Amino acid sequence: MRNRTYTADAEPGDTVTVAGWVHEIRDLGGIAFLILRDTTGKIQVKFEKDEMDDDLVETGLGVHRESVISVTGDVAEEPRAPTGVEVTPESLDVIAEADPQLPLDPSGKVDAELSTRLDNRTLDLRKDEVKAIFEIRAEVQRAVRDKFRDLRATEINTPKIVATGTEGGTELFPITYFGQEAFMNQSPQLFKQLMVGSGLERVFEVGPIFRAEEHNTPRHLNEATSIDFESAFIDHTEAMDVCEAVVKAAYEAVEENCQDELEALGLAEEFEAPSGEFPRLTYEEAIQRINATGELDEQLVWGDDLPTEGEKALGEDVGEHYFITDWPSEIKPFYIKDHDDDDTLSTGFDMMHPNMELVSGGQREHRFEHLVAGFEQQGLDPDAFEYYTKMFKYGMPPHAGFGLGGERLIMTMLGLENIREAVLFPRDRQRLSP
Amino acid sequence: MRNRTYTADAEPGDTVTVAGWVHEIRDLGGIAFLILRDTTGKIQVKFEKDEMDDDLVETGLGVHRESVISVTGDVAEEPRAPTGVEVTPESLDVIAEADPQLPLDPSGKVDAELSTRLDNRTLDLRKDEVKAIFEIRAEVQRAVRDKFRDLRATEINTPKIVATGTEGGTELFPITYFGQEAFMNQSPQLFKQLMVGSGLERVFEVGPIFRAEEHNTPRHLNEATSIDFESAFIDHTEAMDVCEAVVKAAYEAVEENCQDELEALGLAEEFEAPSGEFPRLTYEEAIQRINATGELDEQLVWGDDLPTEGEKALGEDVGEHYFITDWPSEIKPFYIKDHDDDDTLSTGFDMMHPNMELVSGGQREHRFEHLVAGFEQQGLDPDAFEYYTKMFKYGMPPHAGFGLGGERLIMTMLGLENIREAVLFPRDRQRLSP
Repeated sequence: MRNRTYTADAEPGDTVTVAGWVHEIRDLGGIAFLILRDTTGKIQVKFEKDEMDDDLVETGLGVHRESVISVTGDVAEEPRAPTGVEVTPESLDVIAEADPQLPLDPSGKVDAELSTRLDNRTLDLRKDEVKAIFEIRAEVQRAVRDKFRDLRATEINTPKIVATGTEGGTELFPITYFGQEAFMNQSPQLFKQLMVGSGLERVFEVGPIFRAEEHNTPRHLNEATSIDFESAFIDHTEAMDVCEAVVKAAYEAVEENCQDELEALGLAEEFEAPSGEFPRLTYEEAIQRINATGELDEQLVWGDDLPTEGEKALGEDVGEHYFITDWPSEIKPFYIKDHDDDDTLSTGFDMMHPNMELVSGGQREHRFEHLVAGFEQQGLDPDAFEYYTKMFKYGMPPHAGFGLGGERLIMTMLGLENIREAVLFPRDRQRLSP
Repeated sequence: MRNRTYTADAEPGDTVTVAGWVHEIRDLGGIAFLILRDTTGKIQVKFEKDEMDDDLVETGLGVHRESVISVTGDVAEEPRAPTGVEVTPESLDVIAEADPQLPLDPSGKVDAELSTRLDNRTLDLRKDEVKAIFEIRAEVQRAVRDKFRDLRATEINTPKIVATGTEGGTELFPITYFGQEAFMNQSPQLFKQLMVGSGLERVFEVGPIFRAEEHNTPRHLNEATSIDFESAFIDHTEAMDVCEAVVKAAYEAVEENCQDELEALGLAEEFEAPSGEFPRLTYEEAIQRINATGELDEQLVWGDDLPTEGEKALGEDVGEHYFITDWPSEIKPFYIKDHDDDDTLSTGFDMMHPNMELVSGGQREHRFEHLVAGFEQQGLDPDAFEYYTKMFKYGMPPHAGFGLGGERLIMTMLGLENIREAVLFPRDRQRLSP
């Protein structure tokens, strides 16, 4: 429709063709209004029954809600119309009539369960506040990519079909690949590391990851978006700098470019990009502070992983994004390097939103012998990972990086209750379509 | 290494620490040079044996090629050095010694088979001309995303784990998904269509697709990158406009921002972004022109698909990017709409580089009954696709779009002989790692 005008662009005095969905029809007797909705907003179409062609009136007022129509007519100022203008139709075409029985009400007047919404995402995304989440999600992806490029990183795409998982055979979805066993990749970890040893040195990727976790919680997905970064010649503290810069860039972009979307979500007033430096707590400080809150039944001791309630108590205590550093080596993966002066202390770090973990990162083990030993300690066969380990024999620089959960970033940024709200078509134990 | 200086930023008069790979050592007797390479270029490190600490000289000249080292010293002008400057080392650290037996020579002096290169991508990407391909690939992705956003499209991420393939069970990799049968998605087609009926209206995605094709050719991959676009309220001719704009934007960005990379590939002089409008040939014109070349043993007739040799002959004849439009309906997928005034003619289009097909697109069937009938004609069970078809009952606007092969775009743009050269870690019938 080369002659289509977006409703937001219809100016008084114009003759326009607008097209979109029938949002609402209000019949007041001699006069009636049809509210037409498109991606840019809504516009009022006025029917003065006595002064208009009967067919036109009948078609316009007889059409079901959510049908697709186009309307050609003159635009005039009308202060009482929702957007201050209205169209008087000269012609009206019903392009796609909607079934009157809608499985979901896009006007939002009737609440729907999340599962009904996900079953009918097309209709669900006709709601301003749902559409807003995905406009913001797109803006966040744009902003993080831009920030990574500012920091001289090159965008890469690593394979999603792999022969071995990052951390062995657990939590992997098996594939039949031309008669061979293969898996859907759970993380770009090994591949991004292979690239820091190349001439690229510093890379990032925004892409899907797949985890066959049995978890079915409001914060887990079986297919998610990972925002990955890895760089040669930096240590874990520099990786934390990058991580903080990228998360801030995402918030700042949303604050700057998504005010309408924040408004639709009812967040325009409270939304604020984090300004100060994210505090960096050691693991030891973290467990002390958790213990001091008195929220846990049992005190944490060195070597414990942080339970969800512990994270929550600490998050409330800290009240902003923060890092946890210097974890016990034994609870971090083998490919994370230990401190040179204390091999019980890992250079691994987590970056936390007050409500949950967003990022896991660290300096990596770049020394061939240590890496191979790590595989063995983890109970993995180093030979199965030879495609990866052997590159460490040919000049692998020290390097560090992180993985940031794309949906968790959106979920915490917008205060969504369920991570599935941050994905168009989520995948979990029960849900495989749409 | 917070104190690291990139070699390209080392200026005469500075004292710097540079770090990177030992590219080459030239020992001329009393004087010797080590060429240090990092992601920004190369720098000469000078050893005057009589005037320097013996240990330093021994370490610097004894290190194997491709080891990772750091060098601290003063930078001075030296017109005879490759980059016009050299460093006189005060100290030198060997950070990661490389095995002297390299499986691949990153200096490029020894040619390697593609399979050896792919087995050793880390080393392969230390070559300027290989690195250049992936810098250009990243720039192309940036440029196409920017162009789509200029055109008011929203970036989306659709699921890669799906219950049914776009065109049924052929060419799909099966997954075991919590005991259910599932597949890796071969195209975002159905999902992007579901989004044009939402409040987003116009969407794009750059993401992985998976095809279990038996083909093992220089132009097929089993995991590839698809650049997808779909918009409500446009027809196939407007989708072609977008397609052309996006491809031109990619070329223009590379021309503007990747001169060094084009230089490394030996393409700086010949590279030119397409300027004129891409010719739009009908299928009928296309087969006539192919027949007229006399390159085929048998004349093509209406209804034939274009054989590879036919595409090649036509590409040579046209000599620039072009579209083929108005295909016979019978050889286009069921979800492509036929012309309203002639149901033997499809609105499907292909966009061709002179050497191969890059894009497939068209206006889509948005009418519920026609769509369901199409599934049946294709021998597919419409019930299996109900998650998709049912949304067509609730106001699905006319829409059109296309899918552009990300690797084919890079391959044809840079004249690569094998599509695997455009992927970091390609997947084909034989190759599953790295």
